[in-house]
Amino acid sequence: MKRIKLAEGGGGEETWRLIKALFLKYFDNPHLSSLEDSALLEVPSKLAFTTDAFTVKPLFFPGGDIGKLAVAGTLNDLAVMGARPLYLSISFIIEEGFPYEDLEKIVESMAKTIREYNVQVVAGDTKVVPSGQVDGLFICTSGIGKVIYDGLSCRNIREGDAIIVSGTVGDHGACILAQREGFYGELESDCAVLWNLVEKLLSSGVEVHAMRDPTRGGLSAVLHEWANSSGVSFLIEEEAIPIKEEVKGLCEFLGLEPYHFACEGRFVLAVKPEDAEKTLDILRSDPLGSSANLIGYAIKPQGYPKVILKTPYGTHRLLEPPAGELLPRIC
Amino acid sequence: MKRIKLAEGGGGEETWRLIKALFLKYFDNPHLSSLEDSALLEVPSKLAFTTDAFTVKPLFFPGGDIGKLAVAGTLNDLAVMGARPLYLSISFIIEEGFPYEDLEKIVESMAKTIREYNVQVVAGDTKVVPSGQVDGLFICTSGIGKVIYDGLSCRNIREGDAIIVSGTVGDHGACILAQREGFYGELESDCAVLWNLVEKLLSSGVEVHAMRDPTRGGLSAVLHEWANSSGVSFLIEEEAIPIKEEVKGLCEFLGLEPYHFACEGRFVLAVKPEDAEKTLDILRSDPLGSSANLIGYAIKPQGYPKVILKTPYGTHRLLEPPAGELLPRIC
Repeated sequence: MKRIKLAEGGGGEETWRLIKALFLKYFDNPHLSSLEDSALLEVPSKLAFTTDAFTVKPLFFPGGDIGKLAVAGTLNDLAVMGARPLYLSISFIIEEGFPYEDLEKIVESMAKTIREYNVQVVAGDTKVVPSGQVDGLFICTSGIGKVIYDGLSCRNIREGDAIIVSGTVGDHGACILAQREGFYGELESDCAVLWNLVEKLLSSGVEVHAMRDPTRGGLSAVLHEWANSSGVSFLIEEEAIPIKEEVKGLCEFLGLEPYHFACEGRFVLAVKPEDAEKTLDILRSDPLGSSANLIGYAIKPQGYPKVILKTPYGTHRLLEPPAGELLPRIC
Repeated sequence: MKRIKLAEGGGGEETWRLIKALFLKYFDNPHLSSLEDSALLEVPSKLAFTTDAFTVKPLFFPGGDIGKLAVAGTLNDLAVMGARPLYLSISFIIEEGFPYEDLEKIVESMAKTIREYNVQVVAGDTKVVPSGQVDGLFICTSGIGKVIYDGLSCRNIREGDAIIVSGTVGDHGACILAQREGFYGELESDCAVLWNLVEKLLSSGVEVHAMRDPTRGGLSAVLHEWANSSGVSFLIEEEAIPIKEEVKGLCEFLGLEPYHFACEGRFVLAVKPEDAEKTLDILRSDPLGSSANLIGYAIKPQGYPKVILKTPYGTHRLLEPPAGELLPRIC
């Protein structure tokens, strides 16, 4: 089996061969193939810029792999700020001895994921570290996007705003947990690029105040951050939150809160209440948003801003913010 | 001793506390403190964009640390493409149990390094992975800069161009090697941000065709890449290459070629021959360029493009391109 060698990260001949044989094969474009120290880009005047490191374990899971996740995660961070993704940079940190075939699968998956969005990988870096000094493969991606919708912010949520999720929550977290614990079943990550759906929505005339993709910390983290940033509380109908039966089952079995589980292909929206129906129609017309639902509203806080769940029994309970170890290496 | 906990990478309350207590303390600016999924930036229309991962070992070394290196490395990749650094993103991948005090030293060092360049850290990410799954700390940085000088490219070197190095070569590589092997002496990394010196030069009217910072693979990698990209050979006077005595000594002792050793605060330039003297004057007037020297010329290749060293004895030898393992985790 062909394995990655230390020399392929040394900056010498082997590194150049790896770049040409693998990275340029899948990501070829004039910016990248020029092999300069920086890509020179003609850009619009208002940009979004974001970065993420990916350390997910296992590297391959039902519904995706670290490559697809790294691309989707960064493109989605641009999308939820109203920015059309344009350019990506990718840094690979690879353990010596990593199977070349797996690296190629991951690179191919990244290339396939960006293809339909007209996104170019314009900068990259490859480091190889000695065996045992990193677990397999980590990837860092940074993204640049063109802002096409202004004013989205976690500070912009107003009392009365309708809170909508674009699909079932917790799928990615449950899938990774199941893989690690050996509970093999129907669980699949929701890992996906949201841009096309986001663009459809933002160009429809609906008034969106905030969007966020609920990754680490899940729906709960998003709502708590929004509550703190906008100074509102949320009253959320538990029964309205779409959750797959398998995810619910795993959470009940392990005594975990599905609202703390990461999604990687969903977004949460705060929209003007009058636009909630139209938003749902648009989301549900797309396969990525088919299980979208209105889950509650922003309300005037009594005391400090909080997230209140209305249970199926009609009682209220406070949703705790995520804390503790949750699930290391979830993304 | 306070140590980094897994929970501080979980995306919950502990992560937010770490971000506020440490990262915002040192990198505070409105883009970062807004804590949105992407930073929204007003930018000029022609940008440079670059990324790098840093896995250097040891994390602290004479002349710098992984934080200073990560910042300088990315700013220098912008600088050598003629771009004034504007914005940075930083991703930290931290091993569980990493000393908080060391992380703070590194973050402080990064903040100190960017301070005089008016560069803002506008996006970031923090991952914590379980003990043993990464060796200490890795950092990925991406940078955006404004292009102020057009036409720099590894393809633009012409026969006759003067080749200049801005200072002694191999200092960083020799320093890291000495640290790892326990040869403690006077060796110090040249790790530094080059922008101010580069700007002075580019605004002086000299005609520069290409610049590159000789990191992994050293001066040899730069000259070989340039030879391949521009289709020229180089005739380099060995005695003209500035090398510190300590670096020379270490290389002789270990039988290594100093031209393959990484620098982290130097750049190599190809300039119009008539502008060589003026270039040297400008470089030498700055502490970072005090040992700058003209080391040779681009010449018409006979056969394939190559790098020819004229030895102190007047004979010629071919400089081999860097290959093999060189020094893993040099940057």
